[in-house]
Amino acid sequence: MQKPSIPKGTRDFGPAQVARRQHIFNIIRRTFESFGFAPLETPTLENLSVLTGKYGDEGDQLLFKVLNSGDFAKDVTGADLEIGSKALLPKVAEKGLRYDLTVPFARYVAMNRGTLTFPFKRYQMQPVWRADRPQRGRYREFYQCDADVVGTDSLLCEAEIVLMMAQVLNGLGLDDFTIKINHRGVLRNIYQALGGEGRESDLFVAIDKLDKIGRDGVTKELLERGFTEATVETLFELLSVAGNYEEKLERLMAGFVTAGVEPDGPRPTAEEPTEVPVAYRGLTELATVRDLLAASGFKQFDRLEFDPTLARGLSYYTGCIFEVKINNVLMGSVSGGGRYDNLTGSFGLPGVSGVGFSFGVDRLYDCLEALDLFTATAETPTRCLITHFDAASGRAALPLLAQLRAAGIPSELYPDVSKLQKQFKYADAKGIPLVIVLGPEELAAGLAKIKIMASGVERVLPLAEVVTALTAE
Amino acid sequence: MQKPSIPKGTRDFGPAQVARRQHIFNIIRRTFESFGFAPLETPTLENLSVLTGKYGDEGDQLLFKVLNSGDFAKDVTGADLEIGSKALLPKVAEKGLRYDLTVPFARYVAMNRGTLTFPFKRYQMQPVWRADRPQRGRYREFYQCDADVVGTDSLLCEAEIVLMMAQVLNGLGLDDFTIKINHRGVLRNIYQALGGEGRESDLFVAIDKLDKIGRDGVTKELLERGFTEATVETLFELLSVAGNYEEKLERLMAGFVTAGVEPDGPRPTAEEPTEVPVAYRGLTELATVRDLLAASGFKQFDRLEFDPTLARGLSYYTGCIFEVKINNVLMGSVSGGGRYDNLTGSFGLPGVSGVGFSFGVDRLYDCLEALDLFTATAETPTRCLITHFDAASGRAALPLLAQLRAAGIPSELYPDVSKLQKQFKYADAKGIPLVIVLGPEELAAGLAKIKIMASGVERVLPLAEVVTALTAE
Repeated sequence: MQKPSIPKGTRDFGPAQVARRQHIFNIIRRTFESFGFAPLETPTLENLSVLTGKYGDEGDQLLFKVLNSGDFAKDVTGADLEIGSKALLPKVAEKGLRYDLTVPFARYVAMNRGTLTFPFKRYQMQPVWRADRPQRGRYREFYQCDADVVGTDSLLCEAEIVLMMAQVLNGLGLDDFTIKINHRGVLRNIYQALGGEGRESDLFVAIDKLDKIGRDGVTKELLERGFTEATVETLFELLSVAGNYEEKLERLMAGFVTAGVEPDGPRPTAEEPTEVPVAYRGLTELATVRDLLAASGFKQFDRLEFDPTLARGLSYYTGCIFEVKINNVLMGSVSGGGRYDNLTGSFGLPGVSGVGFSFGVDRLYDCLEALDLFTATAETPTRCLITHFDAASGRAALPLLAQLRAAGIPSELYPDVSKLQKQFKYADAKGIPLVIVLGPEELAAGLAKIKIMASGVERVLPLAEVVTALTAE
Repeated sequence: MQKPSIPKGTRDFGPAQVARRQHIFNIIRRTFESFGFAPLETPTLENLSVLTGKYGDEGDQLLFKVLNSGDFAKDVTGADLEIGSKALLPKVAEKGLRYDLTVPFARYVAMNRGTLTFPFKRYQMQPVWRADRPQRGRYREFYQCDADVVGTDSLLCEAEIVLMMAQVLNGLGLDDFTIKINHRGVLRNIYQALGGEGRESDLFVAIDKLDKIGRDGVTKELLERGFTEATVETLFELLSVAGNYEEKLERLMAGFVTAGVEPDGPRPTAEEPTEVPVAYRGLTELATVRDLLAASGFKQFDRLEFDPTLARGLSYYTGCIFEVKINNVLMGSVSGGGRYDNLTGSFGLPGVSGVGFSFGVDRLYDCLEALDLFTATAETPTRCLITHFDAASGRAALPLLAQLRAAGIPSELYPDVSKLQKQFKYADAKGIPLVIVLGPEELAAGLAKIKIMASGVERVLPLAEVVTALTAE
C-alpha cells in the first residue's frame, strides 16, 4: 500500500491556515488597491525562453522545468546523452514554472504595450517556485505579493512604497519593524570616493554579504579583488556613517566632497528638488523621499533607516532600494524592492523605468506565528450547528437551516442520526460557536434551544425568533 | 530581440478580468462557506507516485511532469534511450502538476486521518493543469472549485449539492440552467434489466457518448460489444422514459419490475425512506433527495432533471451523479460531481465514502461573457484621481491623498507634472470615476474642484469637506 506524501519544500494548508493566510492577503490587497494598484495574474507556466537568463546562472539552476508532453525524448540522441543534462534540457523541456513575479510582469507589459495606459500600476499575488534547498523561511512553493509602477520616474512612487510597507506591517500588528532604504547612486558615489571606476558590481556583491560574512570577510574579499587596504578603510568609514536619516545624508555628502567625487545630481524630477549645497543624485533623491513622506503625514521615521550598506545583490536596480526586517523574530527580510531603469529591455521594449516591491507572505506568516499574533481561527466557517434526535427532527430542521443561511449565517445540520454527545463533540472539535438543539419536545412546542459553546449559556426561544436572535449574536 | 509569448492554452488576466473572475470566486466561496465547507489548499507540485494511475491511461498522458532538479539525466542509460520516453520518464521526473482537486484531497485526508474531525467538509479553489489540446472552453491551466463531504452517507449532502449549484448559478445571473441528476444504481438496474452482469462499465462508457455519437453510434458500439438488438431496444426504452422527475422514477420502477430486476434497496440511511412499493436503491435515493430539497424550500424543480442517460464516464462514482449545463450558451458542463464509496483506498485508508462536486470557473466566465452578464469593470480599483498643475500643488495634495485613503477611498495623485488634459485622459482610460482638480487658485482659496467623470458634473468644495463628500458619493 502506497504511503502518500508531498514533495519536500511544499505544504498543505488546512482550514485554519488558509483563514490566516487570507487575513494576510486581504491586508496586502486592500493596501495595494487603496494606493490605486490594479490586479494582474499571469500563468504558472512560462516559456523557458522567457525565464532563462533573467535570474543569473544560479536562478537558471533553480528553475523548475516542465517536460514536454507526449514523446518528449524523441529528439534526444546518444550524443546528447553523453554530454548530459545540459544537452538534453532544450530537447525535452520548453516550459518552466514562474520563478518570480517581476519577469512575467515585464513580459506582460512588453506584450501589451499598445493597449496599456501609463503610468501602469499593477499588483500581483501568486505563488512562485524555486528548486532551492528547503530551510527555515524558505520553501519551494511560496507566495509573492508584488506592486510595481512603470512609466514614471516620480519619487512619489518611492515614498508610497514606504507608506504601503508600513501600512501592511501595522495592519498585521508587526510593530517592531525596520524599513531600510538606500540608493544605488549612493553606492556608486561611495565607489567613486574609493577611486574606483567600472567595477561597481564587485563592490555591491561584497557589501551585500556584510550581514553574513561580517567586516573581516568583506575586507578579505575586497583585497582579493584588488582593492587596497586604504580603500577598504575609507569604504567602511563611509558605510558606517552615524546619525539619523538626515545626518547620514549630510555626513555622506561631506565625505563625497572630501573625496572629490564629481556631483551627479539632482536629475530633473517632478518634485521640488531638496536644497543641498552639492548635488549627488542618490542623496538628493533620498532626501526628497523623506520630504514626501513627511508631507504625506508619515509618522514612523524611527522605523525608516537610511542604510548605506544595503545593496540588494546584483539585481537590476538603479535608484532607491528597500528592504524590511522584523526585528523581534529571527527571519530574513519580509519585503524588498527598488527602482529599475530598464525592466522590459530584454523583451524588445527599452526605456520602461519603474519601481516596485514585494512581500513574502510565507515569511510574514511565520513571523506572525512566532509572535503569536494570529487570533484564534476556527477549523470551519460554520457559525451554527443544528443538532437533532432522529430522522424526523432532522428533516423538520431544514426550513430553519435554509433561513439561517439566507440570513448570512453559515450553518450546518449534522448529517447523520447520532447521539447528541457526538454532535456536540463535532461542534467543539471544529470550533463552531453556536449549537441549536432541535429535539422532539422542542419541535412539538415550537421552540429551539440555543447553546453558546464558549460560555455554556443556553437559551430557549420560539423557533420563529431564532434567526433574528442569531443575527444579533 | 526576443518576442515574448506565453505557452498555448494559458492566459494572462488583466485588471478587469481578475475583477470579473474574483466576482465568480466570491459567489462560489460564499456559497460553500454558507453551507459549512472549510477551505483547503494543496501544493501545485505532487509526487508522481500520488498522481499516476488515478486518472486512467489518458490522464497519465495529460499530466504535466516536472524535471528533477540538478543533473536530471545522470541515471539515464543508452538502453533507456532506445526504449524511449517511457523508460526515461521515471528516471528524470518525480513530480507533476496538480491534475484535479480530488486526488490531492484524498491524499490529504489519508495523510491527516488522525487529526481530522469527520464528517469532514472541505472546499478547494485552485488551478489544475492538463496537457490537453486547447480549444473552446478548454485550457491547459484552469481553475476548479470543489466541495466535498467525507465520512457520512447522508443524502442531505446530495440535496445540498443541488442547493449550492442553484445558489451559485442564480447568484451569477445564469438563470437558464439544467441540473441533471442520475444514480449509478439506476444505471446498474438498467443493466440488470438487459440481463447483463459484470460488464456494467461497458454500458456506462457507451451511454456516456450518447451526447456525442447519438443513438445510432451507441447502438453500433453496444452491438460490437456483444449486446443483442433486443437488449439495445430495451435499453433505449428505459433511457428515454418520459415525464417529470417523479413520473420517470415510477416508470423506471415499473420497467425494472417487468424485467424482473431483483430489488436492491433502500440501503439504510438516516432519512425516513420514501415509501415505494418495490425498493431499488437508486430510485429510492433519488426520491429522497427530491423530498429533502422540497423540505429545504427549493423552488426550481423545473431546472432539476432526472436524466437516466447521465453516466459521467468511467469515474469512481457509486451513488448519485450530477451535471450542470447552461442552456443558452454552447458550452460543455459547468459543474458536475457525485458520490463515491472509496475515495482514499489507494492511499491506504479504505471505506471513506463521500460526495462532492466541482465548478469550472473558466467555463462559467465564458458563459457570463457570452451572455453579456458582467457589469462594466474598471481597469483599476482607484475611485479618485487628484490632478495638479505643478510640483508645489502636487505636494500640497499629499495630505488630502492620505485622508482619502484612510477613509477607504482608493486614490491616486497623478505622479508626474503633466498637462491637465493628459491627467484626465489617464482617469478616463482607466475608468476612474472621480477626478479632483487642485490648481494654484483652488489651493490659494482652500478649495477643490471635483468632477464626476460619468456625468461631467463639477462641484467646488472647501478642501476640508472633500473626504466627507466623496465618502457619501
